[in-house]
Amino acid sequence: MPQIKLYYCPKTCALAPLILLHEAGLKFVTVQPTLNGDQFSEELRLINPKMRIPVLLLDGETITEVPAVSAAIANLAPAMHLMGREPLDSLRVYEWMNWLSGTLHAKSFGPLFRPHRFSDDPAAFEGIKAKAMESINDCFDLIEEKLTDVYAVGGAFTVVDPFLFVFYRWGNNAAGLEMKDRYPKYTALVSNLLQRTAVKTALEAENLELTL
Amino acid sequence: MPQIKLYYCPKTCALAPLILLHEAGLKFVTVQPTLNGDQFSEELRLINPKMRIPVLLLDGETITEVPAVSAAIANLAPAMHLMGREPLDSLRVYEWMNWLSGTLHAKSFGPLFRPHRFSDDPAAFEGIKAKAMESINDCFDLIEEKLTDVYAVGGAFTVVDPFLFVFYRWGNNAAGLEMKDRYPKYTALVSNLLQRTAVKTALEAENLELTL
Repeated sequence: MPQIKLYYCPKTCALAPLILLHEAGLKFVTVQPTLNGDQFSEELRLINPKMRIPVLLLDGETITEVPAVSAAIANLAPAMHLMGREPLDSLRVYEWMNWLSGTLHAKSFGPLFRPHRFSDDPAAFEGIKAKAMESINDCFDLIEEKLTDVYAVGGAFTVVDPFLFVFYRWGNNAAGLEMKDRYPKYTALVSNLLQRTAVKTALEAENLELTL
Repeated sequence: MPQIKLYYCPKTCALAPLILLHEAGLKFVTVQPTLNGDQFSEELRLINPKMRIPVLLLDGETITEVPAVSAAIANLAPAMHLMGREPLDSLRVYEWMNWLSGTLHAKSFGPLFRPHRFSDDPAAFEGIKAKAMESINDCFDLIEEKLTDVYAVGGAFTVVDPFLFVFYRWGNNAAGLEMKDRYPKYTALVSNLLQRTAVKTALEAENLELTL
């Protein structure tokens, strides 16, 4: 049995690998890094010099970045094909994961939640947040346009789906967007995910709700 | 023989997959989208609604995002193990690619080159660019700390190396950083890459120089 430890915080993108660990039926422990105001405490730097979560400790290896953490979990449950069944499905998984991580999270939700990471001038924050909302809306429009099914890739559950779940929740609960009215296909995907035992278990563990 | 078309522009991150196509010894054509000022012309939207390059057209499939485009090229030359030889190497490749694409490119070089994507207020641009430079420096420090070899992963050439090459060049030529003085390990990696025929060929094709 692999030794698995996930560093996560409630409401963060670490919810995605938490769902995957439950899906894969793996034994694991979670660790919640302590916060010092808006920042993680310095002890996290020893684990991840990037000072970000999630971090997966897997048999002594430290793995960071949601797409890599997700791929590591997928490797532990090969029969589930969590990175996609066919080679083209896997390329689509890489494409979704990188865009969600880089464009939707880092470039869009990042400046909405933490404009101070994009300028030291507090007078600039409102303008940065407004532009971030524009970028988030563009991304959600594109997600709605791309989806053709209740799964993002290959007609089956992959690591992309719980990552999409995270951003739907942020859109709904943190950004105050009318997700259900504006994005019927994205809502159907999330609604389908809410039926899964692993998703229910992870939400309960995080004490999170999402009402559609 | 696969039909391969790469949408790219000189000096962009599309240099990384261009190098990979040369490494893999594949036949391909390149297409340079027309620009309308700072933006791509609208015709690119039909190919990629995200309006970004690189885009790889591979036997009719449209693949976007550098990590996915790189993986697609790697699939065409399996004997080269461009995504890493061992499963752990591949996880490290995913980790590097996502961080370089999301944190160094989208979150750091993005606001340095194009602050108007982060605020509509021109008065905020200088502050955004200054913070972007701070973030770029942090990323370069971390790259230097992480490197232990002239290859990023597994002691052999992978898709990570040409992506690292792109950012070194941007640091040196666009951001005006003293890369050679500040980052000896990163410089050794880039210097080693400059010996490769594929890198030389790609730089000549793009009419680019990098003097170390």
